[in-house]
Amino acid sequence: MNPSLRICLAQVDYLVGDIEGNTRALLQHAQEALAHGADLIVFPELTLTAYPPEDLLHRSSFHDCVNTAMDTLLEAELDIHMVIGYPERKPEGIYNSLAIIHKNKIIANYRKMHLPNYGVFDEKRYFIPGEIQQPFTIKQIKITPLVCEDLWYPEPIAQAKQQGAELILCCNASPFDLYKPHLREDIINQRIEETALPIAYVNWVGGQDELVFDGGSLCVNKKGKITHAAAYCEEALLMADFYDHDFKTTTKENDTSDEERLYKTLVLGVKDYVEKNNFPGVVLGLSGGIDSALTLAIACDALGADKVKAVLMPSCYTSHISVHDAKEQAETQGADYSIIPIELTRKAFEESLCDEFEGLDKDTTEENIQARIRGILLMAISNKTGKMLLTTGNKSETAVGYATLYGDMAGGFAPLKDVFKTMVYRLAHYRNSIKPVIPARVIERPPSAELAPDQKDQDSLPDYDTLDAILRQYIEEDQGMQSIIAQGFEADEVKRVISMVNRNEYKRRQAPPGVRISEKAFGRDRRYPITSGFGRHHQGK
Amino acid sequence: MNPSLRICLAQVDYLVGDIEGNTRALLQHAQEALAHGADLIVFPELTLTAYPPEDLLHRSSFHDCVNTAMDTLLEAELDIHMVIGYPERKPEGIYNSLAIIHKNKIIANYRKMHLPNYGVFDEKRYFIPGEIQQPFTIKQIKITPLVCEDLWYPEPIAQAKQQGAELILCCNASPFDLYKPHLREDIINQRIEETALPIAYVNWVGGQDELVFDGGSLCVNKKGKITHAAAYCEEALLMADFYDHDFKTTTKENDTSDEERLYKTLVLGVKDYVEKNNFPGVVLGLSGGIDSALTLAIACDALGADKVKAVLMPSCYTSHISVHDAKEQAETQGADYSIIPIELTRKAFEESLCDEFEGLDKDTTEENIQARIRGILLMAISNKTGKMLLTTGNKSETAVGYATLYGDMAGGFAPLKDVFKTMVYRLAHYRNSIKPVIPARVIERPPSAELAPDQKDQDSLPDYDTLDAILRQYIEEDQGMQSIIAQGFEADEVKRVISMVNRNEYKRRQAPPGVRISEKAFGRDRRYPITSGFGRHHQGK
Repeated sequence: MNPSLRICLAQVDYLVGDIEGNTRALLQHAQEALAHGADLIVFPELTLTAYPPEDLLHRSSFHDCVNTAMDTLLEAELDIHMVIGYPERKPEGIYNSLAIIHKNKIIANYRKMHLPNYGVFDEKRYFIPGEIQQPFTIKQIKITPLVCEDLWYPEPIAQAKQQGAELILCCNASPFDLYKPHLREDIINQRIEETALPIAYVNWVGGQDELVFDGGSLCVNKKGKITHAAAYCEEALLMADFYDHDFKTTTKENDTSDEERLYKTLVLGVKDYVEKNNFPGVVLGLSGGIDSALTLAIACDALGADKVKAVLMPSCYTSHISVHDAKEQAETQGADYSIIPIELTRKAFEESLCDEFEGLDKDTTEENIQARIRGILLMAISNKTGKMLLTTGNKSETAVGYATLYGDMAGGFAPLKDVFKTMVYRLAHYRNSIKPVIPARVIERPPSAELAPDQKDQDSLPDYDTLDAILRQYIEEDQGMQSIIAQGFEADEVKRVISMVNRNEYKRRQAPPGVRISEKAFGRDRRYPITSGFGRHHQGK
Repeated sequence: MNPSLRICLAQVDYLVGDIEGNTRALLQHAQEALAHGADLIVFPELTLTAYPPEDLLHRSSFHDCVNTAMDTLLEAELDIHMVIGYPERKPEGIYNSLAIIHKNKIIANYRKMHLPNYGVFDEKRYFIPGEIQQPFTIKQIKITPLVCEDLWYPEPIAQAKQQGAELILCCNASPFDLYKPHLREDIINQRIEETALPIAYVNWVGGQDELVFDGGSLCVNKKGKITHAAAYCEEALLMADFYDHDFKTTTKENDTSDEERLYKTLVLGVKDYVEKNNFPGVVLGLSGGIDSALTLAIACDALGADKVKAVLMPSCYTSHISVHDAKEQAETQGADYSIIPIELTRKAFEESLCDEFEGLDKDTTEENIQARIRGILLMAISNKTGKMLLTTGNKSETAVGYATLYGDMAGGFAPLKDVFKTMVYRLAHYRNSIKPVIPARVIERPPSAELAPDQKDQDSLPDYDTLDAILRQYIEEDQGMQSIIAQGFEADEVKRVISMVNRNEYKRRQAPPGVRISEKAFGRDRRYPITSGFGRHHQGK
């Protein structure tokens, strides 16, 4: 019988750019693994800098810090093999590398070969590609570590196999994607089908601006069975024994619903954005509508209700049930709330502008003023208390611009930015299924911005089932107008929705960051010009 | 004597994404060139789509439009050779290509070999690289066209020379850069030194969101002399005769000061953003300070004073001379203005928040409320009239966050976003040197936000000469703290400035686009995480 190798997959949550802090945490995690008898600890991609460090990689002083950190790791002389990701600066360029450190030596070094340059990824902006290297050996076991994207192509693992590798490690920075929940497992299985090599896959966990890395690290044996799996959305040191050329114990797969996994992702995204940026808590406007209700629940679950402050800002168009339901939510969850009516300030603006607007009809200008007064009040509380303002808008609104810039769009972070309205409802039901926190009426009432008498969202938008379906085709699937109409949607409705999406790029450009849950969130992954004539002539047809 | 070839360099201003409109304009320009006896018309990079089309390139319907446009060009059967840039979709990927069209045939096709993936450029996100092709021939002259970045490397032109090319065309999308005004000429001269091949260089002119392409198309003969040059910042069909293997007539170089070229760039950037997005005009807050004074002058020069509306919004902290000077500027330039005091609304907010803020000291919260009231008033006028709101902040303020989000940062476009305060002064002097429009007192007064009694910018910031010098080192030159201190700046001041820049990334992320004039504007070219621990520990040291 071959010797057994104990592997620790470090599914950790580090802070981008905090090389010193990450190095300390890494050494602690390695010592913990050592205490559990591990021979080898494997960290996620770019461990020292966390992912993605973006243009910090252009700074010379940043690489100096990486070098200092590498010295610190060597000086620690730990008797465990550590697989550590780091940016490796060389005269010819920077590699996205893995160092295998044992005691005071780097015993091997690997460089990422396939550099993703799509979606949110800009790796060709920073890195140059490496080439396959020979496996390293522990206890006579030959091991080849790969970096993330390298597993998505057949040839790196095939070459490793040729070189005699018996085990593949894969160090990743793979963000959550609602629409491709099983993509990682599928890729791993495909590589195992091709090579019959067992794979240990470690992923980051944690929020970084718009990205949430959801963990889900796992070991898969040469038959394609998952033998070890870490939970989603929490830190874990996953221990796995490798002997007789394979992982043995089989385990239950992570079996979670879309809603559960998504809700946990949103909670983690909010928690990490707030905590990593050192905010003492959050404030949000609570309207009595479903978006702010769900945002409140996420905030309370992420930070604890004592860190969450809700503000109700009724106007003459706000119904009594809105105020009642909003109070009920805050009280149910134990969050502090204030009520600040906006009539006084609204009248002051009306008076200030009466000469300027003399003879002109009322229009959305007056609605926007109300939303912006609320923005000022919330930002004043944010400025005075240090609490960050959460916005409550969802992806459907953000897509068509059904929101007021500097009004309800004002804030530091937008938890629901990439969540379609139809999914907001599903998440509300999911959250209530654990413990009811959102009153049934909030879920059942027709949605309204309450900025004009008897206003309903559906006065100016298609119903949300239709709207979300068109938006998914146009945004997520990059389908054109004709192709969407051909799917059976009403032509005028499709044209109107597409035109709204295109016209409102300028608003999205000034929106706060929010949790990305799709491959086409309105952030680094969707880069559209504001000034654009595409579709202009079609609109006229 | 060899036959003479008449070449037209089309320095044109097209609209990104408007493939139909661009195709019509292109045919008109070609017909105009034909009427002037041209054998060949050369357009800038990605002519049909204009540059940069960004993620529109991911849409299948976008490529369908390109194909339709190519058919239209062939059907026109013009008896002139046209060099046209277009995205060439193939099964293996998309090329950034040039088609040489004559009558109803594509007689040759070239593909960009070097794809820039730095700064604002993401070409590896969209394109795959091509390979060198044989020259095409007109009137026995062998010509190789290159695309932009291909001229920045020695080997494409060297290969063209080997293949017998006598003339190089270069089709570009090269944005303005204040700090590298002669870089293009230097590159061209280097290639000519290597190959003794004459080069005809054509560039876009016009604004596209943050970018301004400043034109400056030129022909350089085999001795490295500029023989033909188009003006900066205006459309031109530059005609050049090529005979006896070279360009002959020599011409004066474009000889303009930094300030003149920069001012023209800002004017063009504002003009194109407003006009291409179909705004009927602009509105801006006029404070009596130098930033809004210069912004007003740029707006009036870009659009005509009749399209510009200034709003004076004095508070109890606004000095009388501020109001006086602001009125004088609007009147001198013939722009409409209104005066809307903010005391009434300020008091309404004070009253609305008095319970919430009971027992708490006044701080910047109250200053921000004033700035945000002005933001609401300006946005109300913008919403009611359709005029776009210009912000007036400069790069120094934007860098250190000396601005109020949703307050003075509210607006659709920021003309001075990439202009340091010290350059704002130089531009004000330059503009006044043509015709005085900014009162001397506005230039000479110590700058103040006038949000608190006797406030001066220099109460909370280093003097602007020092601030801008540190910012240039940190932002434009990517220098670290130690390296800047080593240059002789005061250590605490450097630490404070760097800390402000890092802390305020979140504000910049929600700032409107503005004219980019450097390689490190706060837009697509500077991609920093908001959540970042880099430097956190240093700050404490």
